[in-house]
Formats: sequence, structure tokens, C-alpha cells
Amino acid sequence: MLSAKLPRMLPRITLLLSLALIVAHDVLATDSSRPKPPIMSELLSASKPSDWRALDPQNTLYLELAGGRVVIELAPAFAPAHVANIKALVHEYYYDGLAIVRVQDNYVVQWADPDADKPIGRKIRNAKRTLAGEFDRSLDSGLPFTRLPDGDVYAPEVGFSNGFPVARDPKTNKMWLVHCYGMVGVGRDAAPDSGGGAELYVVIGQAPRHLDRNVTLVGRVWQGMELLSSLPRGTGALGFYEKPEQRVPIKAIRLAADLSAADRTHLEILRTDTPLFQDLVESRRNRHEDWFHFQAGHIELCAVPIPVRISTK
Amino acid sequence: MLSAKLPRMLPRITLLLSLALIVAHDVLATDSSRPKPPIMSELLSASKPSDWRALDPQNTLYLELAGGRVVIELAPAFAPAHVANIKALVHEYYYDGLAIVRVQDNYVVQWADPDADKPIGRKIRNAKRTLAGEFDRSLDSGLPFTRLPDGDVYAPEVGFSNGFPVARDPKTNKMWLVHCYGMVGVGRDAAPDSGGGAELYVVIGQAPRHLDRNVTLVGRVWQGMELLSSLPRGTGALGFYEKPEQRVPIKAIRLAADLSAADRTHLEILRTDTPLFQDLVESRRNRHEDWFHFQAGHIELCAVPIPVRISTK
Repeated sequence: MLSAKLPRMLPRITLLLSLALIVAHDVLATDSSRPKPPIMSELLSASKPSDWRALDPQNTLYLELAGGRVVIELAPAFAPAHVANIKALVHEYYYDGLAIVRVQDNYVVQWADPDADKPIGRKIRNAKRTLAGEFDRSLDSGLPFTRLPDGDVYAPEVGFSNGFPVARDPKTNKMWLVHCYGMVGVGRDAAPDSGGGAELYVVIGQAPRHLDRNVTLVGRVWQGMELLSSLPRGTGALGFYEKPEQRVPIKAIRLAADLSAADRTHLEILRTDTPLFQDLVESRRNRHEDWFHFQAGHIELCAVPIPVRISTK
Repeated sequence: MLSAKLPRMLPRITLLLSLALIVAHDVLATDSSRPKPPIMSELLSASKPSDWRALDPQNTLYLELAGGRVVIELAPAFAPAHVANIKALVHEYYYDGLAIVRVQDNYVVQWADPDADKPIGRKIRNAKRTLAGEFDRSLDSGLPFTRLPDGDVYAPEVGFSNGFPVARDPKTNKMWLVHCYGMVGVGRDAAPDSGGGAELYVVIGQAPRHLDRNVTLVGRVWQGMELLSSLPRGTGALGFYEKPEQRVPIKAIRLAADLSAADRTHLEILRTDTPLFQDLVESRRNRHEDWFHFQAGHIELCAVPIPVRISTK
């Protein structure tokens, strides 16, 4: 999630950063009378504990794969019925032993019961198979919203609410979660009420914004994206794996609150309702790292990084 | 590259599409007196041979990996010096035996000579090690440009020129290639003239538009993206592989024109300067497939798919 450059090789960049410190005075003297704004790494180094929030174990899922753990934060403020239903599915161990059945390049990874449509398919006991879609919700001034200054191709307003990418339309009084990289959504059939959380997908490519308000988004991945994004692509239509042995088994999905503290992944997420976050957005609209010669002066919603760290408590 | 939905399972979708045909009359009768606009698959089915163009072998590279071939189209209209230099590097077999050294999640795959900074590094004989950056170019009314209707967060105008995503600024009289998924760029150090094509990267995530006009883009991948995007992510800083054995060897990079016709991959790309392409853009701004219940009414530059097919000639 942190700053990235395109160096030829790392050792050379290290050297150049050292040189940059030496010539910093000259750069400032010629470029501007004001000092350069801070870059993201400097902002994070200066952050206070109150700039961060710990994930709530009651709204954090662990998707356990052979390769490791994917940490997902749920978004009950936007999809309360689906979040409750997914927790109910977790509590009846519905997902354990299912599999990733679809990996479509530049689009989504999706897991499901491969036998869902057969008599041998996994039964749902207490949770619901389907729910009415939660594609948007009413605007609520009680929900924090840090609006981005550069607009959006799709929506009147975009920004972040508690770390989630959000769009808003004051005319219709609606707000909704946005399909950025790492967002988790509810697979469905053609009917809008045909999903319920038994099948979930994660965005692994360019933001598929055409899906906004067409599916229920329920959360986002904060750690372990590479365990999903680097999976072999399915060669069937829509990226489905064609052979059962290609599927990637899901060992388990667990609610963090159901594990002992020792078994949890203690992540902290940079808050998005702080002056520091506003400074971070500015540091990404105009990059003042030495490597950059042109500053974009703008940033898209899905291009804003939200820093994550392991809790030191 | 083609249409994708988020079904629970494929067999069910097939069934639903059949049902959709049966109820189509009712849908049309209630929704509108006009017929539904065509969807992308219908537009492609109705396309004429003149709606497609074959890749020019003189500007097509094959990146050969153990997993298969990545097909790259070069963009001499935007980076003539770099394209010429990359061809010179290909002709002296510079890339053969080098390796992918960096895979950073949601960002880039990059290849290079791992020993470039050591005495044992690969020598460049006839090509150049570095060139002045070709970060943008003058507007040229002779270059086709199909402008998109929905604007852009970063640039005054965006659209496609011969299949490449392009931004334009009439005020400064400049145009430049844009960092969409699959675009190929020239790695460089901090100095703008420190790259030359010996190290190249491919975008494998959300469009990193902050790189626009900071690096020279030289082409785009038309086939084989999944061979790059599914590689294991590097665990070092910036996604570099930490151990030499993790690197992914490059068997060779060849210019298509240097291979016999039998050894080439004969791709055809949908032209982007045709009425059909305009209809395709419209079919993606407002999705009329049965699955969609909300139509975005907008599309971002990097979300427009450019169809590719194997030549049947």
C-alpha cells in the first residue's frame, strides 16, 4: 500500500535519495520560497496513535487459504442485512471447504460452492440463501465522509467513509460503496434479490464501476490481496476454472471475534476522517518525491492508498 | 477482454439468458417503445472485416516466457526514439535471458538485467542505454482520436488513438499515452533522461495515472496479460523479488517481423476510429445485458475494453 516508484534497481534509488538530501537546499531555493509539502512516508512517520483505528473484531473476517490469511473488513453501515447474513454463514461454517471457482483477469476472484446447483450442494441451515439487494442507502450525515476534491467520472461526489470508498448523490439523497480494487461484493444471478452472501467476489483489477449499484458490496480486503490477485486465471468463460482440481480450496472463513486474541491479525488502518488523511490525499495529488517531474494535481477515488500497519500494542 | 457478468454459476446464467429471450417482448413493451440498444457481443457479431485491423509485425513484440507468449504493440507515434531503441535492443538479443525482477501488487510487473549495476551486467552494443524522455508529444490532427464523452479526473480530454488510451490538453497543445491496465512503460531512475527501454514495466492494477507524463509509455499488451498479472508478488520493497531464484526468466523478446508467418500470433484489434467503436463505447456506458438493473451512464478511459480476436485469414 505504500509509496512506489519505478527505479531501475533499488540500490540506485537509495543512492539518489541520499543525493537528493544533499541538493535539497538548492532545489528549494530555485523552485519556490516555501518548503516542499510532506510526502506520504513523512506524514505517516509523524502520525499520532489517534490517526489510526484498530479493526473491529466483530466486523472482521479471515479468509484462510493454503497460502495464508486474507483480512476483510465488513461494512454494516452500507449492507447491514448482508453483513449479518454473512456472519450467520460463518457461524454455521458454510464457507469452510468451499473453493475459489473463478479468477477473471483484471476483474474478480470469486468463491462459491461448486455444487450449489446440485443436490449434493452445501445446505444453508440458519442463514438465508438470498436477500433483497443493498445496492445503495440513504445519505446519513452521521456517517463520516471525506470528499475528494477532483470529482469522478461516474458520481456527483466521491470520498471515503471509515476507510471505504463511497459515492454520493445529494439529488437522490443516496450514497453507496464503490468497486475499487480489493472491494468485496455479493455474487448474484440476474434478479437483484438473488444474492445473499453465499458467493462472494473480490475486485482484482481496474475498478469495475459499472457494477456500482448493481451488486451489494459488503467490505474490503486490508491484507492478503496478493493471495487472491496472483492466482492462476480461469480459462473458462468469465474466468471460471474448467477443471475441479484447478479450484483453490477455502480452509475456513472466521470472524475475528471468534478467535482468541493470539490468533487474530491485529491491523490498524489509517483513519480517513482526520487532517492527516487530508494531507495524505494532497501528498498523492501532487507527488513531491524526488522521482516525479510532473505533478498530476488530481487523484481518482480508487487511486488513493489507505495505509495499513500491524498494531504494536 | 469480453463481456463479463457476476453469475452465481455459469449453467444458471445460461438458463436465465434463455428465459430473457422469452420475456424480451414484455421487457421492451414496458420499458420503452424503442428497442434496446445492442450489447457488445451483438455489435461484434455484426462487425465487418474493415472494423478490425491486423497488428503491424514491424511494431509488434513477443515477450516469450515459460508460460507462453505476451503480445505487445509498440506506439511509435508517441515514443519514436524509444520504440526504435527497443527494436535495436531486440535485434542485439539484449533482453534474452534477462528476467522479471519485480511484481508489485496492484501496480506493475517489471523486467530488467538483475546485474545491470554490476560489472557482469549485460552490455548494450548498438542500442542506447538512455534517451531523453518522451513523456508527451504535440497534438497532431493527423492522428485519429475518438474522444470519450464522460471526461476524466486527470486530463481535459481522453479517448483512443489507434487502440491506445490517450489524453489531450488543447491549451498546451499536448497529447500523451495514459497508464491503463496493460500499458508498457520505460523504467527510469530519478533523472527524466535515465531510461531507454532496457528495463520495461507493464501495468497490472488500477491505472496509476500519477505516472502519466512522468515516464515514457511505449506500447500495450494485447494478449498474455494473465502471464504477467498472475505472477507471485515480490516481497521486497516496491515488489522486487528478494531471491534470485524467484525471478521469472525471459526466454526472448522478438519482433514479429523477424519471425516467419507461421511463428507469429495473428491478432486483429477492433479499430477505435469507426462508428462501430462509438457504438461499443455506448454499449459499455449503459449496459443493457439482462443482468444489469442500474446503468452507469458513464465510462472511464481505462474501463473501455478493446476487443481482440485471432485472425481467421
